[in-house]
Amino acid sequence: MTPSSVTVACCQLAPSIGHVSDNLDAAGTMIRQARESGAEIVVLPELATSGYAFSGPEEAAQHAEPVDGPTVALYLTESLRATVIGGFCEAGPDGATYNSAVVASGGEVLAVYRKVHLWGDEQRNFAPGGEVPPVVATPHGRIGLGICYDLEFPEVARSMAVAGADLVVFPTNWPASVAPTGERPMLHTLAMATARHSRVYVAVCDRAGSERGLGYLGGSIIVGPDGWPVAEATPEDGPQILLSSCDLGTARDKRLGADNDVIADRRPRLYTRLAEAPQAPQRT
Amino acid sequence: MTPSSVTVACCQLAPSIGHVSDNLDAAGTMIRQARESGAEIVVLPELATSGYAFSGPEEAAQHAEPVDGPTVALYLTESLRATVIGGFCEAGPDGATYNSAVVASGGEVLAVYRKVHLWGDEQRNFAPGGEVPPVVATPHGRIGLGICYDLEFPEVARSMAVAGADLVVFPTNWPASVAPTGERPMLHTLAMATARHSRVYVAVCDRAGSERGLGYLGGSIIVGPDGWPVAEATPEDGPQILLSSCDLGTARDKRLGADNDVIADRRPRLYTRLAEAPQAPQRT
Repeated sequence: MTPSSVTVACCQLAPSIGHVSDNLDAAGTMIRQARESGAEIVVLPELATSGYAFSGPEEAAQHAEPVDGPTVALYLTESLRATVIGGFCEAGPDGATYNSAVVASGGEVLAVYRKVHLWGDEQRNFAPGGEVPPVVATPHGRIGLGICYDLEFPEVARSMAVAGADLVVFPTNWPASVAPTGERPMLHTLAMATARHSRVYVAVCDRAGSERGLGYLGGSIIVGPDGWPVAEATPEDGPQILLSSCDLGTARDKRLGADNDVIADRRPRLYTRLAEAPQAPQRT
Repeated sequence: MTPSSVTVACCQLAPSIGHVSDNLDAAGTMIRQARESGAEIVVLPELATSGYAFSGPEEAAQHAEPVDGPTVALYLTESLRATVIGGFCEAGPDGATYNSAVVASGGEVLAVYRKVHLWGDEQRNFAPGGEVPPVVATPHGRIGLGICYDLEFPEVARSMAVAGADLVVFPTNWPASVAPTGERPMLHTLAMATARHSRVYVAVCDRAGSERGLGYLGGSIIVGPDGWPVAEATPEDGPQILLSSCDLGTARDKRLGADNDVIADRRPRLYTRLAEAPQAPQRT
């Protein structure tokens, strides 16, 4: 079934480390506001209720909760009236702590994704996921899920598009960065190219605020399959809901001009380097 | 040997179909001007001496020349004092016509590349190449070579970076396109994301002018490994030389922040979908 027009919301929260209960309240309130504004797909940031800037693995573990903990319980409750995608600090069934996110829809968890590319201190605070980032069918279309730094690996979103994703979402905690005068943040350039390459919708839900000296960009963005933004936060505008109608059915049309198709024109036999184990590059 | 700072030039020509001799003269003149301005790596557009908008395969074949024809002879002569990368309409050794480009350096052809992703009428006018886009070691650093529409496949430049390219070049004939007010052409967004993803230099040498009702963008760009342009043509400014000093050695430093490396952090085992044969996506 080809999806039709749906309203996508990015809930750009500013969670505060150590205040899980307040963060849960803020997330619930913003999800409901987004739904009341018509959102049918609601995206929240990475680690939306735990905060991010942990002092080390012990503190990350203290803030971790299982998939049946309070954060995913909130997402599940809200998913009865919208598809909800959001991050949480996961106490894994194997005892490890993961930087995870779920897709919840119709009161069910359709996917639990554990971030596979870990940024900075995450390498000390979390175990890396070992599974391919998922693409799941929801009543609103097929959704691919990565987290933050995963966006910097073009292989991730491209693999999702090849697997049929209409919308690729990235819950994010992007560090504040300085762009040259007059330029968009580089995060936006990456999101735009990601959408345009595969003719998919891309929704990056970033967080706002700062924690323990680490400032976040507050740069959520929703991009259409032609690569142009359809909704874009101005960095440092703080917590807000970014909302756009997205005709996800158009993401199934991969044509470019009269004779081309960005997915069918691929030459996978020529891309085998990407799936090979890394090796030292040939030296000059 | 880590390369040092080199000057890269994009010679944004406006060739005219059917005027091969004039086009050769214009290319030679502009290469020499670039060299006199200090260029050590000189890039020319796709099909730089034949023109592009052929009426069909017969006309493409009429304008085709072998690797030892006049266009590559010019590139070879000039390559005694610079590394030259440029497109030509190739009469292949197998009798087929290819949309090809070479890397020439020190009076030798180091690589002949036959475009593997064909755009629009190229599908009728040319045979597709069947080999992986090359990465070659030159005295100025390791250069990866794709052509125009290849840039729209993130697999291409990424594969080159994995194979050790410092600079990825795309001889291009990009059709004119209208961007929303205040926006860069989408070509520039793709080039910037390509550079930033793999921390490589990217040089897109586009053509200018128009032929038989087809207008070209004239949007050459050189991007540094942080994703920001170091030289950028304003579309429709016509023939020109874009020149920038590029410290190609910095493209061997793949670090991002204190703890990350955009190539070493890859998880190739999770990217196997990219090298698999295409299949119909799972339906909702």
